[in-house]
Formats: sequence, C-alpha cells, structure tokens
Amino acid sequence: MTEARHGATEPWHPTGVLERHERIGTQRDEEPDPSFGGREPVVCDGQQVAVSGGQQAAVSDGHEALVLLEESRTLVDPELRSALAVLPSAMRRIALYHFGWQHADGTSAAGNAGKAIRPALVLTAAAALGGPGARAAAVRAAAAVELVHNFTLLHDDVMDRDATRRHRPTAWTVFGDADAILAGDALQALALRLLAVDPHPASAAAAARLADCVMELCEGQHADTAMERRAPAEITLAETLAMAEAKTGALLGCACALGALYAGAADKDVEALDAFGREAGLAFQLIDDVIGIWGDPRRTGKPAGADLAARKKSLPVVAALTSGAPAAAELVKLYEAPYDEDREELDRTALAVERAGGRDWAQAQAADRMARAVQELARAVPDPEAAGGLLALAEFVTRRST
Amino acid sequence: MTEARHGATEPWHPTGVLERHERIGTQRDEEPDPSFGGREPVVCDGQQVAVSGGQQAAVSDGHEALVLLEESRTLVDPELRSALAVLPSAMRRIALYHFGWQHADGTSAAGNAGKAIRPALVLTAAAALGGPGARAAAVRAAAAVELVHNFTLLHDDVMDRDATRRHRPTAWTVFGDADAILAGDALQALALRLLAVDPHPASAAAAARLADCVMELCEGQHADTAMERRAPAEITLAETLAMAEAKTGALLGCACALGALYAGAADKDVEALDAFGREAGLAFQLIDDVIGIWGDPRRTGKPAGADLAARKKSLPVVAALTSGAPAAAELVKLYEAPYDEDREELDRTALAVERAGGRDWAQAQAADRMARAVQELARAVPDPEAAGGLLALAEFVTRRST
Repeated sequence: MTEARHGATEPWHPTGVLERHERIGTQRDEEPDPSFGGREPVVCDGQQVAVSGGQQAAVSDGHEALVLLEESRTLVDPELRSALAVLPSAMRRIALYHFGWQHADGTSAAGNAGKAIRPALVLTAAAALGGPGARAAAVRAAAAVELVHNFTLLHDDVMDRDATRRHRPTAWTVFGDADAILAGDALQALALRLLAVDPHPASAAAAARLADCVMELCEGQHADTAMERRAPAEITLAETLAMAEAKTGALLGCACALGALYAGAADKDVEALDAFGREAGLAFQLIDDVIGIWGDPRRTGKPAGADLAARKKSLPVVAALTSGAPAAAELVKLYEAPYDEDREELDRTALAVERAGGRDWAQAQAADRMARAVQELARAVPDPEAAGGLLALAEFVTRRST
Repeated sequence: MTEARHGATEPWHPTGVLERHERIGTQRDEEPDPSFGGREPVVCDGQQVAVSGGQQAAVSDGHEALVLLEESRTLVDPELRSALAVLPSAMRRIALYHFGWQHADGTSAAGNAGKAIRPALVLTAAAALGGPGARAAAVRAAAAVELVHNFTLLHDDVMDRDATRRHRPTAWTVFGDADAILAGDALQALALRLLAVDPHPASAAAAARLADCVMELCEGQHADTAMERRAPAEITLAETLAMAEAKTGALLGCACALGALYAGAADKDVEALDAFGREAGLAFQLIDDVIGIWGDPRRTGKPAGADLAARKKSLPVVAALTSGAPAAAELVKLYEAPYDEDREELDRTALAVERAGGRDWAQAQAADRMARAVQELARAVPDPEAAGGLLALAEFVTRRST
C-alpha cells in the first residue's frame, strides 16, 4: 500500500463516486465536469490507500478518462476495421452492423460501437507499465479484447432475448439467432487470430490469458442465466458476487493484464493489474445494479426499476433477500410473483430492497471494491503519475452506466 | 501428378468407393474387410494418378484407417481430457456430456466421442511429412482441431434443432440452448488456448490457420441455413458446393495443414495438404448426401430419405434441381410442399433426383474430388509409403458415414 506523498487539493475517494450516484435519479445527462484537480490522494475508510500524480497528472472528474477513451478509439478503430475486413462476407456484414458501422442493408452508418472501455484499459495499462512504446505495441491486443467483448454481447443478447443494444435493434432481431451466434463465433476466432499473428513476444501469453477469460465469461453468463431460473430464496450473495466477477470483472481484469503483458511487466504486476481491473469491474457492476433499480430513465435509457420489473436477482436485490431483515420477507413475496405492470408495486419493491439494506450494502461494497482496486494498482504502479490514467478510467466506469 | 511406380495387386480407385456405396441400402453394418492388399496404385478415369507404397504399406479396405484412428485416439484422448479439466465447472460438465464421457447427471460414461477423424488427420499428416517425431509433437494441435470440431457441433445442433448426436440427446436438449452455446464458446477458447501455450515453433501459425478455419466454418453454416430458407429453384450448384467446402472441407483441410505445419513443411506443401483435406472432405460430403437419400437406416441411424423428408437442399438434390432434365420440374414441385408423411411420395422424390441425374452427378463428382485429393497429396508427399496413411483415412471417410 502506497501512502499519499502530496497534500490534497480536492480529495477524491471511492465513496464520493457513490454519493454522486445517489443523486443520479435527479440528474440529467450532463457533461462530465472537466475540472482538473491536480494531485488527488485516494482515501478509503479514513486511510490514504493510493495517490494519483503530481500537478501534471489530471485525474479529474471524467475529463482525462474521456481523452483516454478518445485516443484509444483513434488507435484501435483502424485495427478493428481491418480485422473485420478479414471476415468472410456474411459474417462481416453482421459484425459491421453490430459495431454500428453499417446499417442492416449494408450501407455505411455513422457508428456507435460503445465507449470501448476495454481497449482503453489495455492501452492505458501498457502505457502505465511500459510507456508510450508499450502502448503503441498493444494496439492489436486492445482490438482483440474489444472483439471478445463484442462476441459475448452478440451471444448474450441471443440468450437474454435483449432486443436493443446501443440504441439499435440487436443483431439477432435483425439477422436471426443463428447468424448472431455465428457472427459471435467468428469474432472470437478473429480476436485470437489477431494475437496469433502478432509477432510481439507477449502475444502467446496474451492469447492464453484471453482464452482463459472467455471460459470464465462463459461460466459467468451460465451462472447468471441459471440463477435467474432459481427461486429468490435459494440464491446466496457469495455466488452472486462470484457470477458478477466472472461476467464483468474478468474481462476488465484481462484487459489490464494484457496491457501489462505487452509492457513486459513481471508476473506479479500482471496479476496485480488483473486484480485492479476485476475489482473495478465489480464496483462498476454494483453501481450498474443500483442504477438498474434507482437510476434515471433519461440517463440510463431504460425505465427506472427495470431490473425489478424483470425480477432480476441483481447484487442489491440478493443482498436484501439474504439480509435477514423484516423487509426481506416482503421482497421474497414480491419477487415470487411476476411483475404485473403495477407501478406502485414497483416502488414498494424498490423500497423493500432499500429497507433490507440492499442499496447501502451495494454502495459500501462498491467503495470497498474500488479501494481494493486502487491498492492493487498502487502495488504494480507505485508512481502516481503513471497510475493516473488507469485510475481515471476506473473512476469513469464506476461513475457512469450504459 | 505422380505415376504409379509399382505393379498392382488389387487396384483401388475412387469410383470403387462409390460403387460400394451403391450397395449400401442392402448392406448390414459389417466390419470393414481387414485384408492387406500391399501396393495399390490409385486409378481414376483409367489413369493412374497416385500410388500407395511398397509391400509394407498397407492401404487396405479400412483396416489401416481403423488402426490410425485407434492410435490417434490413444494419443489425443488424454490431451483432450486434460484440456477439458481446465474448463470452469459448469462448462466442463456440458463438454464432458457432449464428448460422451459423462452422463447428464455428471457420472462417468463409457464414452462415444465419435471417430475423431480430424485429430487422426493432423497426426497422420505430421507423420507423413515429418516422421514419428512430428507426429508426437502435433498431439496438442490434434486435440485443438477436435475441440473446434466439437464446438461447431454444439452450436450447429442448437441452430439446426438436431435432437440426437452420436446416438444420445444433444447438449441443448439436456442443458438448454444457452448452456450449449456457452459450452461451444468455451471449447473454441480452449482450442486456441492449447495452441497459445504450445511452445512448438509452428503453434502460432497453426492458431492463425485454425482461427481462419473457424471463420470459414461459420460462413459455411450461415450459407447452409440461409439456403434452407430459400426456394429450391433459386439455389445454384456452385453455391452449394462452396457451402459444402466451407462447412465440411475447410476443417478437414485445416487438420491436414496443421499436421504439415507441425512437421515444419514448406508453405506449398502445407497448402497442398490443405487442398487434399478439402477435396477429400467434399468427396465425403457428396457421399454423405447420397447416403442421406438412398442410405440404409440400419447403417446410418436415420430413416432412408431423411434428407428428402426434411426438404434438405443437399448436393444431389441441387444437382438434380439445376439439371434442366424433365424430372427436375417434378422435383421442384415436390420440394415446394412440406413432407406429409407419405412414404410413397418420398420414393417418388428420390426417383426424381435420380432421374434428373443427381445421384450420378454426386458419385462422379465425389470420384473427381477424390482424384484431386490424391493429386494434391502426391504433390506434397511423393513417397507412396509415407502418403499411405492419409490415403487410407481419406478412403475411410468417403466410404462410411455417421
């Protein structure tokens, strides 16, 4: 654990992130505050656990993250586009639609391929541990991670029957289940092909790690769908956390680990970067679950309480169900019957989760996970300036949702 | 083209394979004839196009192939089992069920993981070009190819709603669509992981080639499902052949190419081995399609005419449909209406395919493809003795079906 070396101007601490989220229901979709705070010690439970950099390191309220995301897109998009060009024609068409680069009829589209957090994590981790050279060398690995992410989105949408992704109809609704499954399969192959043809000395280790991550993502998606079929009273909090780590944390961790591998980092630093990404990913999932219950529909794009209406066993809900609090029994009863479009009942359900401590638990847990993430990062990247970018991205993902 | 160097004792030629198939409707599921014929020149259209070896090379009526398959299983099964052990628990359980090594409840099963032609092709190709050392080094690559094959089976069964595989209920009927898709995804990752952790100098090139093959398999499966939805009169023979090459030929070609890569073969020999496997794969598909119409249900495990009842646009059917013969018009009419359990109508349909030349075309085309396969093989492996094993396997796959 690295102690703060500088005085604070605007102390940033993980729970601050969550406090902002508590207000999300009353916020509009504002631009992130572009203030540059300079050096910002990270405080958790009253203890400084890590720091960001000196006057030049700008871990600000989202601005640095947006710059990193934009720079990453600029580097990775050409790599992704030339990778997709390798696909056979039908697979390419579905993939280009999914990425938002083509309409369903094959004509060009402006594109909304998502924020692409994961490739930005690869590049920023490579830069943190190996400087600009490592960052440039890791572009192919960053594209591979983004391809894997999109393969899992294509398949998850089929399994979950999700009809909308990035404000457009999902691929299976346009091309059918079979084609969406096949395009996902092809994207996985393409991802591992990118690493197989990459002459970088870390590419084989990166491929093995990415393949391991895919297996974990599959297990996580399995656990998720299996849990949704089980009775609410049967679910444990430990298995819900394990599921969220496999489904969300694993790929964020893998992205950071691949960046470290491409920087030629020592094994222990690769593992620390993986743990950083995993913990940040869990924090993100916890916040995303809070937003799924109490979020502002104008900001999240889905109706408030959507997760409750779908009887989703999200982390705050399972925390509430397993709390032993009196409100838990009411929640079990509410969750046993399907949602019948009764808005007032939905408010009662949200209140039951809150009264049983689900919301508080999720926010405290997210803060705890962010603190652990910061610790892991400080272990591998003790220089606060070098760690600033990763910290900014982690803060960004836990502050926003989509 | 390599001319025969030895006199013949029992001439073997590709069309002989097909003649045996013509009798398949009256044959029982007999053991292959274990006779050893010694040297056997390969003759096609009256011309010797390639040869098998001297007195010691036993390209016999299936016996050598069975020995190669058995030896391959002995080498590859432990590699496959230890690879599957890497999977997270739920994925492992589905995979072990699919491979026939576990029952649905997780208890051990005797196992019927199929004939495993593809890993045998990898090992036999490696041996043909690099001797026993190359064969031993290629075991991991052989397992990777078999994992890819099984990933595609898991997914194809979901898409095609096939309920039976290797005489057992398919994974999706037991575990549901989502789990079968996820287990397939995990097996693809596992396959590419095996190559990523393989220190052999050919492993990266093999991984790239296997990934390319997966993309082609996806395109082939897409073409297959898309064609099944189109009107019979719209389908061309060229696209049906291209589909069959992508869906069946590509992985057999890739298996042979990977063996060549692991033997350190020159690029042109790797490509020749790929072409050998592709052409043999197409010959196999043509014969399989003939059996799907005129095969013996006691031997094939599915009712005679099954493909016609399903209105499948298999190669003999499309050849008939596009023949311009008078029977083609009748076939179009029959194929436009769904099968109504009228056995007599099924016989009429089979007769229409035959009268329009579909059966003859498929058999001649299969013979032609086998001749091309043999030519390609002779190009890369001029020593008939060294080529004997691959020839035996190619003969075996085009002689049998499941």
